[in-house]
Amino acid sequence: MSDDSKTTKTPRDSHYANLRRAHRDQKAGGAAPAANSFRPKQPLPPGQAAPEGQVRLYGIHTVRAALDNKARSIKRLLATRNALERLGIADITTLPFAAELVEPREIDKLTGTDAVHQGVLIEALPLKPKPLEALGDARLVLVLDQVTDPHNVGAIMRSAVAFGAGALITTQRHSPHESGVLAKSASGALEHIDLIEVKNLADALEKLHEAGFQTIGLDSDAPQELEGSFAGDRVALVLGAEGKGLRQKTRETVTTLARLEMPGAIRSLNVSNAAAVSLYAARKVLKGG
Amino acid sequence: MSDDSKTTKTPRDSHYANLRRAHRDQKAGGAAPAANSFRPKQPLPPGQAAPEGQVRLYGIHTVRAALDNKARSIKRLLATRNALERLGIADITTLPFAAELVEPREIDKLTGTDAVHQGVLIEALPLKPKPLEALGDARLVLVLDQVTDPHNVGAIMRSAVAFGAGALITTQRHSPHESGVLAKSASGALEHIDLIEVKNLADALEKLHEAGFQTIGLDSDAPQELEGSFAGDRVALVLGAEGKGLRQKTRETVTTLARLEMPGAIRSLNVSNAAAVSLYAARKVLKGG
Repeated sequence: MSDDSKTTKTPRDSHYANLRRAHRDQKAGGAAPAANSFRPKQPLPPGQAAPEGQVRLYGIHTVRAALDNKARSIKRLLATRNALERLGIADITTLPFAAELVEPREIDKLTGTDAVHQGVLIEALPLKPKPLEALGDARLVLVLDQVTDPHNVGAIMRSAVAFGAGALITTQRHSPHESGVLAKSASGALEHIDLIEVKNLADALEKLHEAGFQTIGLDSDAPQELEGSFAGDRVALVLGAEGKGLRQKTRETVTTLARLEMPGAIRSLNVSNAAAVSLYAARKVLKGG
Repeated sequence: MSDDSKTTKTPRDSHYANLRRAHRDQKAGGAAPAANSFRPKQPLPPGQAAPEGQVRLYGIHTVRAALDNKARSIKRLLATRNALERLGIADITTLPFAAELVEPREIDKLTGTDAVHQGVLIEALPLKPKPLEALGDARLVLVLDQVTDPHNVGAIMRSAVAFGAGALITTQRHSPHESGVLAKSASGALEHIDLIEVKNLADALEKLHEAGFQTIGLDSDAPQELEGSFAGDRVALVLGAEGKGLRQKTRETVTTLARLEMPGAIRSLNVSNAAAVSLYAARKVLKGG
C-alpha cells in the first residue's frame, strides 16, 4: 500500500490519481478490461426494451448459469472477446442461437451504463414458474410474502441455493418478475432453484402444512427465538417485506412466529440478510435429521 | 386477495389495475403518499452535489437516527408535511438548523427520483472516522478488506449494529465514503456504530491480535467451518470484496481462515449476507462468554 504514504500533491499526482481511481472503480465494478479502460464511460440510460416476451440477462456468472441450464431458451447472445474467453466459449459460431462479438459499448446501449454486464448479455425466454405441486421432497423452502425489490429477491435466491433450499415460493402478484437486475443479484442462482408462484399465500401455507411442513414466519416482535422454534423434518421459512413485515393473514396462518436474536440498537435486518441468517440456522438443524 | 380472482379484463380493469399498481409501487418504495400519488413521477437524475464537505442523507429511519445522534452536525433539513409527522417533528421552526417544508418534488430534484427519500433529506457533516485506538472493549468487530459497494457496506453496518458488533473497520482507501446510498442501506445504523479507518489492514490486524482478538478471515475455500473455528473472547470477522475475496496479505495475517458451510450448487453469498451470517454465528458463541 505504498500509495498511502504519498502526502505531497502535484497536479500530475492528481491526474494519475484520477486515472488510477477510474481504473480501480472499473475493476471494482467488474467490467471487462478493455484498451480504453482508463477513459471514464459516458453514462447511458437503458436502451429499448427486450423483444416481447423475453428478458435480458447479463454478467458472467448469470450468463454462464443460463448457458448451463437446459430449461433456459436463449435467443441471442452479445459478448466481448474478453467475456467469451471468461465464459470458455472458443468459437462463437458453434452456439445454437444467434451470437455476436461486440464492443462493451454495444451492450451499454441496451442495459445502460449502470448495469455491471461484464461484457456479456443474452436475450432469453423467462423461466416458467412452477405450481406448488412441483415441490417434491424438499425439506427446506423459503416463502416470500410480497417482497418486491429485485435486488433483495435476487440475493435471497442466491442464499437459498447456497444453503440448499428446495424452492422459493412467492405470490403471483406483488413479487418481482425475472429481470436483468434480479438475475444479476442472484448471480446464477435463478437457474438453480425452483421458483413456485402461488395465487393465495395462506392457501399455499395450508398445503405446506398438509405436506408435513412447519411454517415459520420471521417477525422481530415474536416472543420466541428462531433457533429454539424448529420442530419437525420439513421447514418453510416465511419472510415479509421490509417495513411492512408479514401480512396479518400470513401471520395468522403460519405454524410458528419467531425472531432472530439481535442484541443491538437496530432490531431488523435487510430482508435478504434476514433470509440468509434464517436459512443458515434452519440448515444447521435439518442437517442432523 | 380478492383481486386474484379477477379473470376477465376490461379496459377499465386495466386502467384501475395500473392505478393500483402505481399506488402500490409508490407505497412499496415508501414514498410519502401525496395528493398526486397516483400520477407516475417524471424520472429525474440526481441534482447538483451537496455543499462542499457535506453529505446528503435521506429516508425516515436514516434522518431519524441522524437527528438523535449528538455527534452529527446537521446544516439543513428539507421535509414534506407527512415526513415531519412521521419524524414526530411538530414545529419545524424549533429545529436548531435551517429547515424547510417542501413538496416531494423539491427533494427529487436533489436526490433524483431513483432515491427512496420518503419525503425527507438533510445536509450534514459526515461523521469523523475513528482511529483503531478508539476500539475500547468491544468483543466482536467486523473488518472489511476493500468492500467498495455502498449498498453492501450500508447493509453490513445495519447487521453489525443489530448483532452488537462494536466497530466496523475499513481501509481508508478502497472503501466507500459516507453517502446517501450507504446511509439509506444502513437504515440508521451509520449513527450507531464506530467506523474505524486504518491505513494498512495487515498492521491493524496485528494490533487486533495484540489486543487479544482472534481474527477470522472468511474464505469459501478454507478447510475449516466458521462455527468450529471460534477460539477466545474477542473476535474480528474479516470479509473481502465479492469476486476478489481477501487479499493475499490479509489471508496471511489473520489468525484463522474459515468458510460458511453451504451445501448447495452456489458456494458464495452476497458479501452483506455473508457478513450477517458470520455475525450471527459469532454472536451465539460470544453470548455465553
